[in-house]
Amino acid sequence: MGPGPSDVHPRVLTAMSRPLVGHLDPEFVQIMDEIKEMAKLTFCTRNELTFVVSAPGSAGMETTMVNLLEPGDEAIICIHGVFGNRMADIAERCGARVIRVEAPWGQPIDPQMISKALATSKPKLVSIVHAETSTGVLQPLEEISGMVHAGGALFVVDAVTSYTGTELLVDEWGIDAIYSGTQKCLSAPPGLSPVSFSTRAVEVLNNRQHKVQSWFLDLSLVKDYWAGAKRTYHHTAPVSALYALHEAYRLVLEEGLENRWARHRQNHILLRDGLQTMGFEFLVDEPYRLPMLNAVKVPAGIDDVKVRTILLNDYNIEIGGGLGQFAGNVWRIGIMGESCTPTHVNTLLSALKEITNL
Amino acid sequence: MGPGPSDVHPRVLTAMSRPLVGHLDPEFVQIMDEIKEMAKLTFCTRNELTFVVSAPGSAGMETTMVNLLEPGDEAIICIHGVFGNRMADIAERCGARVIRVEAPWGQPIDPQMISKALATSKPKLVSIVHAETSTGVLQPLEEISGMVHAGGALFVVDAVTSYTGTELLVDEWGIDAIYSGTQKCLSAPPGLSPVSFSTRAVEVLNNRQHKVQSWFLDLSLVKDYWAGAKRTYHHTAPVSALYALHEAYRLVLEEGLENRWARHRQNHILLRDGLQTMGFEFLVDEPYRLPMLNAVKVPAGIDDVKVRTILLNDYNIEIGGGLGQFAGNVWRIGIMGESCTPTHVNTLLSALKEITNL
Repeated sequence: MGPGPSDVHPRVLTAMSRPLVGHLDPEFVQIMDEIKEMAKLTFCTRNELTFVVSAPGSAGMETTMVNLLEPGDEAIICIHGVFGNRMADIAERCGARVIRVEAPWGQPIDPQMISKALATSKPKLVSIVHAETSTGVLQPLEEISGMVHAGGALFVVDAVTSYTGTELLVDEWGIDAIYSGTQKCLSAPPGLSPVSFSTRAVEVLNNRQHKVQSWFLDLSLVKDYWAGAKRTYHHTAPVSALYALHEAYRLVLEEGLENRWARHRQNHILLRDGLQTMGFEFLVDEPYRLPMLNAVKVPAGIDDVKVRTILLNDYNIEIGGGLGQFAGNVWRIGIMGESCTPTHVNTLLSALKEITNL
Repeated sequence: MGPGPSDVHPRVLTAMSRPLVGHLDPEFVQIMDEIKEMAKLTFCTRNELTFVVSAPGSAGMETTMVNLLEPGDEAIICIHGVFGNRMADIAERCGARVIRVEAPWGQPIDPQMISKALATSKPKLVSIVHAETSTGVLQPLEEISGMVHAGGALFVVDAVTSYTGTELLVDEWGIDAIYSGTQKCLSAPPGLSPVSFSTRAVEVLNNRQHKVQSWFLDLSLVKDYWAGAKRTYHHTAPVSALYALHEAYRLVLEEGLENRWARHRQNHILLRDGLQTMGFEFLVDEPYRLPMLNAVKVPAGIDDVKVRTILLNDYNIEIGGGLGQFAGNVWRIGIMGESCTPTHVNTLLSALKEITNL
């Protein structure tokens, strides 16, 4: 019940323990095709260039940046937590001039700030985190998307924590590049990053002036492996991890995307009410709270590390500590995917009551 | 029995199906520590900076290049197959001036060519593939290592296919940076890359003038996660894949490294004798043949794709086709890790006899 990895369904664990086949075996290519289709369904997109990067979510972030940015480009990066900062760091390593649009940690980005930044720059892209795992903020995207496109830029979204846990409509919201992780609401093991690129983004890729600085993440090469008719060898895909993801996607689609979003919402309300009864305060204002990642202030008189250590050792429950400026004074409680059940919520609430006497 | 992934031991599959814990959980940190120790033992090194990149072998290759090279550096890259070419491509993407030392595919690099290149350049590193998976060549390393150090350069080795399948002594041979994969002789699933860096290499890292162009592979950040006292969060480690690697390492050490090398050699001889009796010719001269990856010429009158398809569909055996200039006329038969047994060899030989009437 931290910020991920979440619990994994037994069917996913079983899938992972299947014997390996070659990564170019026709049977495995079939699995890759099915994963692509399920990635499209869960991103709510028809983007052809939808696949899975063979590395964790941070590598998905880097994939979007190194492929879309070239030296000298401008990029507006929205920062309201750890992961916005990471995007800015990566964009700068691509040689881009980064224009930072910031909000205090715990608050969403004000669209008017982006509008102002667009008025005085000509960015290749505007990038923002949908679900800031470090603060628990859910960032509304639709209004910003319109502004970004009016400014002629690509709209890039980090959906590591929101993907399959709350509404996320890639095509309808005009998202041009998106990346996620597998270990949050998808409830597959960490190590892979589903990504999707719009036709507008693909045009930008096709018109690059320089080689992508990363060979491993170069979409002009990776796409022939994942999407090309010939499935040209690029690297060796992580066969077992993709078995697991395949099964995790099947579970998502069996439940239904909208049911899954609703389940995260319902268990969030259960958790919220229980925590508030005990006197906990949320870090984030109600309209911007993530359902799957609940950031609450550590109450006065409660020892952060001590309580989390007792939870882990005596109750077998992990919750996350605060990052950056919230280290020591915020807890991040994850209810993601298989870890998002009334049993998880009630077990944690009871344990916290016992430990803290709140 | 292709160029990898190899078969995986049931204990490794079982390890992978264990429920996940948090990637910063003390129990998981303990597993990471044990993996580091077993990586050192299997690389035959005391290098402190020995750990596992959270992505496949190609990302290990990119890790060494992006961390050791800076724009304007010279790099001697030895090319005698696909993977040497890949190193050169990556080094150029780092802004390095690449000096290519080439041998015909199927032959090792002549050390005198490296000596000549060193006489007219001042490279930061010399990089070479120990076991060229595309050609089946085993490259002798010790003589070259001496030359490289005399020239003041770092010695970088690709050991993706050789690691734990044939003698490989990182410290004794003066290797400064090395990367491997998990899906070859280690017999873990693909998706991870064990790496090791000497103190000489770490000095170069510490004296860089520019930020590493990849955030995900930046050793100055990754090392604090894998090796720092505080285990600072960088990315989310692929927990299940590391469970698998941990168990695969245990199997290697239970067998003993030298016994494992000998087993690969013995089964290579069994395979070689059987193939030669049927009239197959090896691509590579005897002293330079890899034990674990046997490149043989497709005999006249034999249809490459047809035979490999029958092998796969009717006999459940995968062997590799040729890459690049060897496409259509060379087979690459892998006997790696768990796939390196007399049963594997004899089953393949019988099947080939039935199909080809050789």
